[in-house]
Amino acid sequence: MLKHKNFLIVLSSPSGAGKTSISKQLIKNDKKIALSISCTTRTIRKGEKNKKDYFFLNDHEFNEMIDQNKLLEYANVFGNFYGTPKSEVLAMTNKNKDVLFDIDWQGFQQLKQNEFDVVGIFILPPSKKELARRLDNRGRDTKEEVVNRMKLAQSEISHFLEYDYIVVNENLEESVKKILSIIESERHKRDRIINLTKFIDKFRF
Amino acid sequence: MLKHKNFLIVLSSPSGAGKTSISKQLIKNDKKIALSISCTTRTIRKGEKNKKDYFFLNDHEFNEMIDQNKLLEYANVFGNFYGTPKSEVLAMTNKNKDVLFDIDWQGFQQLKQNEFDVVGIFILPPSKKELARRLDNRGRDTKEEVVNRMKLAQSEISHFLEYDYIVVNENLEESVKKILSIIESERHKRDRIINLTKFIDKFRF
Repeated sequence: MLKHKNFLIVLSSPSGAGKTSISKQLIKNDKKIALSISCTTRTIRKGEKNKKDYFFLNDHEFNEMIDQNKLLEYANVFGNFYGTPKSEVLAMTNKNKDVLFDIDWQGFQQLKQNEFDVVGIFILPPSKKELARRLDNRGRDTKEEVVNRMKLAQSEISHFLEYDYIVVNENLEESVKKILSIIESERHKRDRIINLTKFIDKFRF
Repeated sequence: MLKHKNFLIVLSSPSGAGKTSISKQLIKNDKKIALSISCTTRTIRKGEKNKKDYFFLNDHEFNEMIDQNKLLEYANVFGNFYGTPKSEVLAMTNKNKDVLFDIDWQGFQQLKQNEFDVVGIFILPPSKKELARRLDNRGRDTKEEVVNRMKLAQSEISHFLEYDYIVVNENLEESVKKILSIIESERHKRDRIINLTKFIDKFRF
């Protein structure tokens, strides 16, 4: 009955903390959440689909997006560009969706600098040992890439203080439940409710 | 694994919005929540149990609690005193429980003035018509009491701006789910997590 102002949800975590699996489950379990699709200049991987997993662009196209101020945030990670198209986010909030972002701390900072209302959730692995094990098990990266990811993980984790919520991902199902709770609860924040004063006024006797 | 600092949850609402049924369900569904038991000078009603529903006290005993600064908050409603014993709340937070309060805006204000960490949730009936219907259907009050409750309801509702969250109770089960989400989400607020920096430090490579 009462509607809330749609907001953006940023999930950040070091690579290997389980963020991608969590995001997929969130979208599946809560139809009022839409996943933001980023654009990237990196090569398409086996099994990925253009416009579903990412908008795959070449460097020229990506630079044009930057120049025309069409990106809400962007970053260069290991030589590839990643960014969020503003038009996609607006299309989703216009459909009354809360928009989920799977981006790093730099992207989160840039989003907060825009006019959007952003909730930041930081996902931590249960331990350093478990993080190392998960990074190693993915098997799709070279040794050098794993070492780089380890370093990047530590740098990412050092930004935990900038986030509103912390979830330790010990178990996928439990973590998904916790994050669904966080998102649901944010919809009931007094400040986000549209026309609340009008609704309250109707209770005059 | 990571623990949170226990907090107090205040559910306020006009009489007839469904707060009591909601509270019962919350306790039943989440074993980490404990219900604060108030003390009162009002007469015990049929079906109520001393020390379970309330601590039933006489005026002298209640005044002693006030004088000895043993109450976190208290109020006089329609000539009866209601209050929250400090010792009970501490006993519950010491057992790692988040403590649920079914009190009005005045009690909420007093709790916030104490050293406790309080989350305020305001429950609204779906409409004025529905509120009037529910107040009338309870059948245990005289006509004059119903009129008084209607006036009190309006005064209570006027304090909605002081609460962190708003839940419109259209359906008991849905409202319980929403409030359980709010409570769960508050447990993951970064500021409430105990020893988070210590945990983060363990991720150094």
